[in-house]
Amino acid sequence: MPTTRIHVDGMTCQNCVRHVTEAIAEVDGVTSVSVDLDSATASVETDGVLDLAVLTAAVEDAGYNIRG
Amino acid sequence: MPTTRIHVDGMTCQNCVRHVTEAIAEVDGVTSVSVDLDSATASVETDGVLDLAVLTAAVEDAGYNIRG
Repeated sequence: MPTTRIHVDGMTCQNCVRHVTEAIAEVDGVTSVSVDLDSATASVETDGVLDLAVLTAAVEDAGYNIRG
Repeated sequence: MPTTRIHVDGMTCQNCVRHVTEAIAEVDGVTSVSVDLDSATASVETDGVLDLAVLTAAVEDAGYNIRG
């Protein structure tokens, strides 16, 4: 499954990881997501069409930022 | 094939479309790309791992911006 790797700024603990994971998991087109605190990255597996603006908005709504 | 849709700001003509298309096509993980001027979007099909930061840098190096 193709994976998109994104960099998420602002995560400081495992609760942040959980919030970002939940936010990304709800985006249309996302089939699974794995967030890593140390590398500040999320690996997002997708199917169908993933709209990056929707993904970014979901992460920002959760209080974090995608570093483009 | 899963597709990531991104919004690209700054394109004004078909030459812009060509430049953005070429920039995105060279990014690791991208298998095909279709850029539309009217909607200011690029539809990117990927295989393997697509690093969004690399994609963004490629578009910015070409003189355009990804609207996150």
